[in-house]
Amino acid sequence: MTASKTVIVLGADGYIGWPMAMHLSRLGYQTVAVDNMVRRRWDEEGGTFSLLPIASIEDRLARWHELTGKTIAFRDLDLCDGEALDELIAEWRPAAVVHFAEQRSAPFSMIDQEHAVRTQVNNIVGNLNLLFSLRKHAPDCHLIKLGSMGEYGCPNIDIEEGFITINHKGRSDRLPFPKTPHSFYHLSKVADSENIHFACRVWGLRSTDLNQGVVYGNATEDTALHPDLATRLDFDSVWGTALNRFCVQAATGNPITVYGRGGQTRGYLDVRDTMACITLALENPPTAGEYRVFNQFTEQFTLNQLADIVVAARKAHGFESEVVHLENPRVEMEEHYYNATHSSLLDLGLQPHYLANTLVDSMVSLVQQHADRVDPVLLERPSVTWKGGGNEYWKQYAGTSAQSRLREADAKMVQRALGAGAGSAAAHREESAAGAGGRS
Amino acid sequence: MTASKTVIVLGADGYIGWPMAMHLSRLGYQTVAVDNMVRRRWDEEGGTFSLLPIASIEDRLARWHELTGKTIAFRDLDLCDGEALDELIAEWRPAAVVHFAEQRSAPFSMIDQEHAVRTQVNNIVGNLNLLFSLRKHAPDCHLIKLGSMGEYGCPNIDIEEGFITINHKGRSDRLPFPKTPHSFYHLSKVADSENIHFACRVWGLRSTDLNQGVVYGNATEDTALHPDLATRLDFDSVWGTALNRFCVQAATGNPITVYGRGGQTRGYLDVRDTMACITLALENPPTAGEYRVFNQFTEQFTLNQLADIVVAARKAHGFESEVVHLENPRVEMEEHYYNATHSSLLDLGLQPHYLANTLVDSMVSLVQQHADRVDPVLLERPSVTWKGGGNEYWKQYAGTSAQSRLREADAKMVQRALGAGAGSAAAHREESAAGAGGRS
Repeated sequence: MTASKTVIVLGADGYIGWPMAMHLSRLGYQTVAVDNMVRRRWDEEGGTFSLLPIASIEDRLARWHELTGKTIAFRDLDLCDGEALDELIAEWRPAAVVHFAEQRSAPFSMIDQEHAVRTQVNNIVGNLNLLFSLRKHAPDCHLIKLGSMGEYGCPNIDIEEGFITINHKGRSDRLPFPKTPHSFYHLSKVADSENIHFACRVWGLRSTDLNQGVVYGNATEDTALHPDLATRLDFDSVWGTALNRFCVQAATGNPITVYGRGGQTRGYLDVRDTMACITLALENPPTAGEYRVFNQFTEQFTLNQLADIVVAARKAHGFESEVVHLENPRVEMEEHYYNATHSSLLDLGLQPHYLANTLVDSMVSLVQQHADRVDPVLLERPSVTWKGGGNEYWKQYAGTSAQSRLREADAKMVQRALGAGAGSAAAHREESAAGAGGRS
Repeated sequence: MTASKTVIVLGADGYIGWPMAMHLSRLGYQTVAVDNMVRRRWDEEGGTFSLLPIASIEDRLARWHELTGKTIAFRDLDLCDGEALDELIAEWRPAAVVHFAEQRSAPFSMIDQEHAVRTQVNNIVGNLNLLFSLRKHAPDCHLIKLGSMGEYGCPNIDIEEGFITINHKGRSDRLPFPKTPHSFYHLSKVADSENIHFACRVWGLRSTDLNQGVVYGNATEDTALHPDLATRLDFDSVWGTALNRFCVQAATGNPITVYGRGGQTRGYLDVRDTMACITLALENPPTAGEYRVFNQFTEQFTLNQLADIVVAARKAHGFESEVVHLENPRVEMEEHYYNATHSSLLDLGLQPHYLANTLVDSMVSLVQQHADRVDPVLLERPSVTWKGGGNEYWKQYAGTSAQSRLREADAKMVQRALGAGAGSAAAHREESAAGAGGRS
């Protein structure tokens, strides 16, 4: 690690972007955090919110400086604004860029035509603009791009890391691994990967494409320093993950809802391992013109296995949890072969944190501290289906202000503390959540 | 064939789109031609033009009706306008859509950032909008999408038709054929293919993706009826093909310019075979949910072989042609393995027209009729490089009006016919072209 190197984190207000910016700043990199704050606006659009309260970006940056003496620079910038991005890259000429700045929800991309188009344009154009700016102002920069294991789909052969050697009719070549992505969002990431690969081949850029699994956990060395440094915890069906949903359901005494038969297998990793993986990639850059792909996850689980882990963790504390299967809102295989190679990051020295009862315990504990903020409809009802798009639950919440509901929830929490009753429908929802929370 | 079926041709003012619309109309389909006329504006933007004069869309449609009694409906519409496209599909509920409506030049997509972004947004969003409109208003419609053999790149194994069965570590799956596309344009087509495949998997749409080789020729049964029914002949380095350039160079007595060593191998087909292939696909639709890929070409040639064919065709008439090799403006392999399967359309009954002296003769003859319109700079100088984008030739022509230069050329032709001299630079260029044409 060279302490004086400049690293730009694109999408630094997001779930992983924010802890990543702190992590790099802690390590001594000159860290530049960039975000257009659109993730918070998407919450407003869909009536969703982080269960864990998150501070404004200004408060995050100020608190980080106050507690560590380190400064993270910040720029409010949209990657689809090619000129602004060009100026950013020219200004900093970074040694590396870590690119999280994409719409990252599969269900969000499946809501309707407008969301599919918005997802693909936002992601593909932002990434394409970045490639041109790097070529122009920082051709030696290491582009660390966050891809997704969901780009591959679920092939009936082992998934390799980006490339596969194919022997065919007596000849052989090492070619990009064939992909059958899960959603319009994942399709946008496939297009990104192909554009980056091309820019490396033709222009000699260098890039690491990290096909990341599902990330869980909220506690890093840095987020733990102060509540203002916390990162998001999404539990709704658009932005949350299955594991988050299961933990919130278990913590609030609600049934754990598995979509479909539950044999859907994916790769998973702890957010601390995301920090470590990206740092390893950063410290071991590819050569000029090299495009390499790492599969960034540490364990594979089926949905049923995840549910079992949560059930077992709660049982260890004497709590029983029910598991129910809902009709699958997605179009996907529910029983399938899945075996993905993920040795490159281990070879670079990754020491994984495996999913254990202690992690589930800490997530459940975190949820219980904020149980009054849980909205049971957002928690339990898939609001987007792959065949039909945004359904009645999406429409119910779209455009409503999550903030006003949170203020209601906070008011109800106070009322309950004072022993007062409440009659409105919103209050009833909050009561149910609180009541459920009280049972577990 | 069911004569009453409605087929929409998207991009019906283009090189292939226009003869395709006439072909379908002749066959008795209710044909709806759609175009936003942007190809003509791109000519204005880049100072390029069709060597063969083309009539306005209004004159084309009127002439077709006058000569055949058949009516082709027309809509001026941009696929990126999702609402207008939705209304179109709802209005006609077509049995099939033939989709040519994309920016189709690799060099155009490599000019600069703006052209790369414009190409990918135009193509990807237009295609994505189409998928949503079909799902909504015509879910049984057969989407016939024009892809490109250039999506595959030049792998060291045989190229299969869209999918390949991979045996790997003792397991097997049939997966999308891995692609390493040649340009940002080809990358946009790869993204299209993946979006269409997804829409077939998840929504049950049906589609034939035609990965077409390089098309040559201007004479179909229909274009031959009248000069107003002619289709484009592009010879410049942005919109023209190598074979067109070679024919124009040979016809005007200029050296044949091969980029690089000339071992670059691609698939080729006659425009009459394009008509036949698309008709075969149309008359043999896939089942609901099926996404199939046909490789649409009839012969493979290296650039050197193409040059040799043109040289031989001219020699048969007693004319000598010189072949020169220019520095390759593209980043590509110049000697490589290339063998692409293309049996699906033959299995459906395609009877190919192979590239022969007679075709080259007819192209040379066509060029000589319009030799005064040839601009030797546009003909001989690559104006876009893969590493540097639009060069001094691009900048020289961008924004200049091709029409005013064509008017000059026409005036000079008249002057020459009258035996008058001319001194301007433009006149000198035209004189050179005409003089060169006179030598051959």
